[in-house]
Amino acid sequence: MRATVMFGAGDVRIEDVPDARLVEPTDALVIVTRAAICGSDLWPYKSMEPSETGRRMGHEFIGVVEAVGSDVRTVKAGDLVVAPFLWSDGTCVFCREGLHTSCLHGGRYGGDGVDGGQGEAVRVPQADGTLVVLPVGKDDALMPSLLTLSDVMGTGHHAALAAEVGPGKTVAVVGDGAVGLCGVIAVRRLGADQIILLGRHPDRIALAREFGATDVVSERGEVAVERVRELTNGFGAHSVLECVGLGQATVTALSIVRPGGAVGRVGIPQEESIPNAVQTFFDNVTIGGGPAPVRAYIEELLADVLEGTIEPGRVFDRVARLDEVPEGYRAMNEREAIKVMVEL
Amino acid sequence: MRATVMFGAGDVRIEDVPDARLVEPTDALVIVTRAAICGSDLWPYKSMEPSETGRRMGHEFIGVVEAVGSDVRTVKAGDLVVAPFLWSDGTCVFCREGLHTSCLHGGRYGGDGVDGGQGEAVRVPQADGTLVVLPVGKDDALMPSLLTLSDVMGTGHHAALAAEVGPGKTVAVVGDGAVGLCGVIAVRRLGADQIILLGRHPDRIALAREFGATDVVSERGEVAVERVRELTNGFGAHSVLECVGLGQATVTALSIVRPGGAVGRVGIPQEESIPNAVQTFFDNVTIGGGPAPVRAYIEELLADVLEGTIEPGRVFDRVARLDEVPEGYRAMNEREAIKVMVEL
Repeated sequence: MRATVMFGAGDVRIEDVPDARLVEPTDALVIVTRAAICGSDLWPYKSMEPSETGRRMGHEFIGVVEAVGSDVRTVKAGDLVVAPFLWSDGTCVFCREGLHTSCLHGGRYGGDGVDGGQGEAVRVPQADGTLVVLPVGKDDALMPSLLTLSDVMGTGHHAALAAEVGPGKTVAVVGDGAVGLCGVIAVRRLGADQIILLGRHPDRIALAREFGATDVVSERGEVAVERVRELTNGFGAHSVLECVGLGQATVTALSIVRPGGAVGRVGIPQEESIPNAVQTFFDNVTIGGGPAPVRAYIEELLADVLEGTIEPGRVFDRVARLDEVPEGYRAMNEREAIKVMVEL
Repeated sequence: MRATVMFGAGDVRIEDVPDARLVEPTDALVIVTRAAICGSDLWPYKSMEPSETGRRMGHEFIGVVEAVGSDVRTVKAGDLVVAPFLWSDGTCVFCREGLHTSCLHGGRYGGDGVDGGQGEAVRVPQADGTLVVLPVGKDDALMPSLLTLSDVMGTGHHAALAAEVGPGKTVAVVGDGAVGLCGVIAVRRLGADQIILLGRHPDRIALAREFGATDVVSERGEVAVERVRELTNGFGAHSVLECVGLGQATVTALSIVRPGGAVGRVGIPQEESIPNAVQTFFDNVTIGGGPAPVRAYIEELLADVLEGTIEPGRVFDRVARLDEVPEGYRAMNEREAIKVMVEL
């Protein structure tokens, strides 16, 4: 079968790889119908050391179940399913607490004999705990929004929960990438009044406003901090969603939060320490978040997608066929595209 | 009047200072009957640059109201009152949210014309918002425990809240100083099952066990982390109270928390950044806390002190007269005393 393999920074190719197949009795074999390129795929795209064997890519996908192992009970051949970006058993102590990202028997796509999502098929381990059946046809018009349930919409929702968003709160979202945009949707959905987007790309800002952003701050650094203070009676935001992960964005996020407020981190941290330790201490700021346990959120967000009350699929502004995936990486890396959906 | 003044590291003296007096109509003049030396007083005791004018010390005290300004309504001459370690108006947006430490019109004792608590009298600004009347006589046997409501018991309680302590949780308390010991009291009071104290002083460990600690880890660094893992099924503690503030203690606190758990910081951070940014991210650890808004907690904790269900005053293992305060600093700094109460 054909699948996306990264061989080094900037070097993404579509290669022939061994066919996906069932291995464990808890596996499902899924024929991928939609996949996505993630902002986090751009970190290795910028920095990966050259590799002869390469690395299988992709962790956001929807597909049709082709076959299941003998222990699988909740999905069956023919089901259309969405896969969270990590697989998890759904039964361990962490899964039962809703923290599927720390599943004791879970793992990542693209390594250790598990396929990546940007390919024709995937062996999904722990299928019962992982996959969620979608009650639509595989070419339904909602497909882009349903695909965001595998990662980016759930990640925005997680950032909002970690930032303690709620009715009446003033919220700032740092970053206008697909996660930041889904963060705006999540914040609006949770009832916040004022939603300040920190971002600089006109197309993304326009989309953020449609999603519910009430204010936009396009400056950076100290000036951005001052602007947010002006917009919040001098206090800062109750809730801040950090959707970038770079050091400067983290400093900004921690500098614009109100005393007693909370910062939800979902951008993968690119530094080994969290800045502003003393200021956040004296301001009693809470810092939370991490990789989103999107599996825990799918049912709740799926209902809103099916009802049409949220449209996170609008973050996809480009569609690629599998052999166009390398070009999709380039376009996202150069900020020509917000997020690329792959149609198989 | 006489009061404690620090002139540099290791140089604490009892000096004649101008008498405390009412200045603002919102002030109360309080004749101090009990005061305390705080672990945080030891930071300048270790490091303060020499100063000719010196710095007035003390922020934990109980006293009798001598006079009040014309706007004061809730306390009157003759009342026995406890003062939180910061003064606050009780009416601003932050006070109304219970975050009195960020009061828009609040401040600290010992600077800007406000007396320190380790002296014969204190001008207390914003008396209505700050002082709480104690329904006992000034020599009541509960005085040591009542005095802890000004800081150390409320601080332990704040750490426990920030660490999301609750029934059924496994909790670790990093630090066996007076705050850590009060943290153990708070954790037990909030219903946790397993309470692991990380500390090394036999007298403090013995007290912690009486307060409810179920396990003690006296190792440091990686070995301590391993010991806590052994005690928690390999997972770490749901809730960790960081009651030290030094870099190594912070690394330990962040390394022994369970995925999805929370660390409550109340030790004043001695580093500009928080370590373990990546591990805490991937484990979805929440980091909260800061200076405790003890004013918000006094009524709740006072009830338990009056009923005798908690005895935080046991952290005082030495009593000093005012002229013995310099010796009290020395004894606490050299770990001869856990915490010193000053009787005036």
